[in-house]
Amino acid sequence: MIRMTLFLSDPEVAAGLDAPTTVDAMRAALLAAYAGRLAAPPRVAAPLGGGRMVLTAGHLTGEWYGYRAYDTFGHPEAAQVVVLHDARTGAVRAVSVGDELGSRRTGGLGGVAVDALARPDAATLGVIGSGRQAWTQVWAAAAVRPLREVTVFSRSAARRAAFAARVRADLGVPARAVDSAAAAVRDRDVVVLATTSTTPVLDPADLAPGTHVNAVGFKQRDRTEFGPDLLDAAAVLVTDSPAQAGAYVPPMLAAEPPYADRLGDLGAVLAGAEPGRTTAEQVSLFCSVGLAGTEVFLLDRLVRVGAAV
Amino acid sequence: MIRMTLFLSDPEVAAGLDAPTTVDAMRAALLAAYAGRLAAPPRVAAPLGGGRMVLTAGHLTGEWYGYRAYDTFGHPEAAQVVVLHDARTGAVRAVSVGDELGSRRTGGLGGVAVDALARPDAATLGVIGSGRQAWTQVWAAAAVRPLREVTVFSRSAARRAAFAARVRADLGVPARAVDSAAAAVRDRDVVVLATTSTTPVLDPADLAPGTHVNAVGFKQRDRTEFGPDLLDAAAVLVTDSPAQAGAYVPPMLAAEPPYADRLGDLGAVLAGAEPGRTTAEQVSLFCSVGLAGTEVFLLDRLVRVGAAV
Repeated sequence: MIRMTLFLSDPEVAAGLDAPTTVDAMRAALLAAYAGRLAAPPRVAAPLGGGRMVLTAGHLTGEWYGYRAYDTFGHPEAAQVVVLHDARTGAVRAVSVGDELGSRRTGGLGGVAVDALARPDAATLGVIGSGRQAWTQVWAAAAVRPLREVTVFSRSAARRAAFAARVRADLGVPARAVDSAAAAVRDRDVVVLATTSTTPVLDPADLAPGTHVNAVGFKQRDRTEFGPDLLDAAAVLVTDSPAQAGAYVPPMLAAEPPYADRLGDLGAVLAGAEPGRTTAEQVSLFCSVGLAGTEVFLLDRLVRVGAAV
Repeated sequence: MIRMTLFLSDPEVAAGLDAPTTVDAMRAALLAAYAGRLAAPPRVAAPLGGGRMVLTAGHLTGEWYGYRAYDTFGHPEAAQVVVLHDARTGAVRAVSVGDELGSRRTGGLGGVAVDALARPDAATLGVIGSGRQAWTQVWAAAAVRPLREVTVFSRSAARRAAFAARVRADLGVPARAVDSAAAAVRDRDVVVLATTSTTPVLDPADLAPGTHVNAVGFKQRDRTEFGPDLLDAAAVLVTDSPAQAGAYVPPMLAAEPPYADRLGDLGAVLAGAEPGRTTAEQVSLFCSVGLAGTEVFLLDRLVRVGAAV
């Protein structure tokens, strides 16, 4: 029997992975990692003069192994490559080239966090940022809570208006662009930070009690889209990989004292081994780091979904 | 303009890379490496429990960068992935999955060595081994010398007979299977060692004066398809990467005293900076290590050849 390799570009990934499928896959990945079945060693990199090739590998025992490879040259058309091997035969089952798999992966992890930590009745979402990462966060959140309204702020009036229009058109959710970060997050049940800012974009005083926050952008000492004041305000603090959170250089704010001791593991929350939100008034914060191996996990899911059609 | 990624499996690679094109590309790669234009850092590996993902990267200044990735699990259908990025835009121009690119690459390097080091009038070839590597060596040698006869020995009578039949059919060269290594190499102008043997398969006393030898299999202390006696017999000793030859664990015989001092660089020979064969009676030996970056170099050539058709 000849098993062909499936080659996938962004359009195929977009067509094959809807938000419920993606969130479900990332929930399974977080549980597998918590159970010790998803091996994901530290990334390795080869210097190439002016940039590096970086490889993050993963192995789901008995199922698959593979990797994501990307470079740090910063070229305009740079794209990630994700490769999925069958763990029984070694065959290359699929190769994905592009950005969709990675951003849907990150969105899916955010969707799991919203599902696990936002109040059950959460229905409004405010987002700061209007790029690809902001989009997949909202896309995934809409799959786990019936959203009644989305508000969006980003520096470009044109881009935030386009983002709101896309929310209305693609997700069927009422959406408005607003002219300040404070206006975007005020009285929201869920807030998404997905900017490229290296300085805080949010004043936690603008958050209503009981808000859940997904933070996707920079969150390190000296470059962060939110300040320690948000960590102080958050009664519930989790990440998708405490190990990766602890390995950032410069260090991640939430992985340093006095916050490190209470930085929880989203996988442990899903498994019932750690508490998540315990009252409707708590502010909860998800520090997204991108659990290693999850792009390959999602590619595996995509191949299975495709095979089932 | 949208630049699509070209996805290539073994049949496309086989159809796109004939032996003259492959040998020509590997000659260009060796010259680029010798000139310092082909960067190829040491391989990096991520442990995955029971095996490793290995990445060998390369960068041809101003042209492309990329890598070959493979694993060490030893599964039956394991295949290599080679990825080519455009150095100006970062776009992924091509992805190859399979074994053809790697074995043609190794064959092409062997063809360059035969062209540079065998006598100009070389016309007979003896090969020990009948696998994929043995085949691409003969395939490439036939592109640089008009072969009059090929003799082949391997342990399986059926496989060596099939190999000889393939030489006749695919290369149009008379070929015979013989029943000993000595019979395969006796009175040959070119000899190829391409076995998986960990003990010597060749007695140098069986070689005629003036023979050129390509050694493709194990060549390390404690596991080697030829003994130090061949190194003693060889007046000309070269490799495609002195740096890689010096980094083997366990050490490569030719990269240890007393041989290391006279282990030459095939790229330097091509550039005229080091002597190759200087008399018709010398035995010359090419220790093939697989210069890093050459799979990506060959994939780039394949894409260019395809674009020109």
